[in-house]
Amino acid sequence: MNILLVYAHIEPTSYTAALNNVAQEVLSLAGHNVVVSDLHGVGFNPVAEKYDFRTLTGKHYNYLNEQEAASKQDLAYSPDIVDEIQKVQAADVILFHFPLWWNAPPAILKGWFDRVLTKGTAWDANHMFSTGLYRGKIAGVTVTVGDEEKYYQSGGVHRATVQQMLYPLLHGTLAYCGFNVLEPFITYGLTSGNEFSLNQQLAAYKVKLEKLEDYPQFIYKY
Amino acid sequence: MNILLVYAHIEPTSYTAALNNVAQEVLSLAGHNVVVSDLHGVGFNPVAEKYDFRTLTGKHYNYLNEQEAASKQDLAYSPDIVDEIQKVQAADVILFHFPLWWNAPPAILKGWFDRVLTKGTAWDANHMFSTGLYRGKIAGVTVTVGDEEKYYQSGGVHRATVQQMLYPLLHGTLAYCGFNVLEPFITYGLTSGNEFSLNQQLAAYKVKLEKLEDYPQFIYKY
Repeated sequence: MNILLVYAHIEPTSYTAALNNVAQEVLSLAGHNVVVSDLHGVGFNPVAEKYDFRTLTGKHYNYLNEQEAASKQDLAYSPDIVDEIQKVQAADVILFHFPLWWNAPPAILKGWFDRVLTKGTAWDANHMFSTGLYRGKIAGVTVTVGDEEKYYQSGGVHRATVQQMLYPLLHGTLAYCGFNVLEPFITYGLTSGNEFSLNQQLAAYKVKLEKLEDYPQFIYKY
Repeated sequence: MNILLVYAHIEPTSYTAALNNVAQEVLSLAGHNVVVSDLHGVGFNPVAEKYDFRTLTGKHYNYLNEQEAASKQDLAYSPDIVDEIQKVQAADVILFHFPLWWNAPPAILKGWFDRVLTKGTAWDANHMFSTGLYRGKIAGVTVTVGDEEKYYQSGGVHRATVQQMLYPLLHGTLAYCGFNVLEPFITYGLTSGNEFSLNQQLAAYKVKLEKLEDYPQFIYKY
């Protein structure tokens, strides 16, 4: 399979980096073709701007309208966006590796969704969810969380689970574009950082990745 | 009151701009001191980086640890972060004006939360929610949504309300820092764009703002 890893952490010794490295190793060893988008590494710009398009259509600048127009002109987006779209189009599976910041992806990754999953290539007015333009592909989220799991239960301070916090991404973004969405792989307690359990998690992630083709667990599937 | 408007739209003729302009006018006329952070206007950088700190403490770079250390050294953050922190500290009320992109704030605004609501100035291990460091201040979210409201009901394609989509921001970020959080002001149907109802919404927003001191409706309050 062609597998794209979208990696959003600045520090190469971080636990998010360790998870991304495990994925790269395990999936390459299994014979898959693995491509990494290292967002901090390439200095990815997350801000949606007029420069995102080779030409502009209307007087009233509307980002979604420009996205759709560019999709019909042989991907008339800025080169960094074209690169990412082509990686997504070539991928069978995309895995996102990031730390949970303010109960959501960091800005550098949020901007990847804003700029790369364009109206016209990922979805449009007639293509979403079961008819999304990336239907048939798989997407998965692998996230590290500072707090321990107990804080993300109904009786915990957040009063919601991490999976609920990620609903705008898992359902509202990835499923919206037609991806079959894997159960998120969540590692808790990074702030306290019990090394033993973190190593156990890395081993568990390896097992999950080795079975990626055999028994994927989806939370949204069409 | 001191009121900070955090405005995140690139297009000055957008409906989000119209809402932000109404807020600036109405609140200034009412005698409040209004300050605007125009994120696109100032080219706000939303990416959390090592340059965010005047010095770095540890060998293993950890963004939250660096935030906390800088908070104890007379705000040893980069100047753009210091500016925003000082605006927040001076504000009694903060209103966020933005379009809903992928059921969440655009990256330029997500990065404002990542970089400005720092560990050490907005919250820390012992100060969150009812003890958050911004306790006593008010925060409100004013958001424009492409889809019509019917798509954001339990029977609609999103299978959740916009308020539920915004839970990571409203509860997981703003309430977390101790803000009393206003009911979000949501305008639907921007894609179809019925001008009459959009004008009605602007008028309703004006009324809400005029009553900001008298009858604020909170969804989270300590």
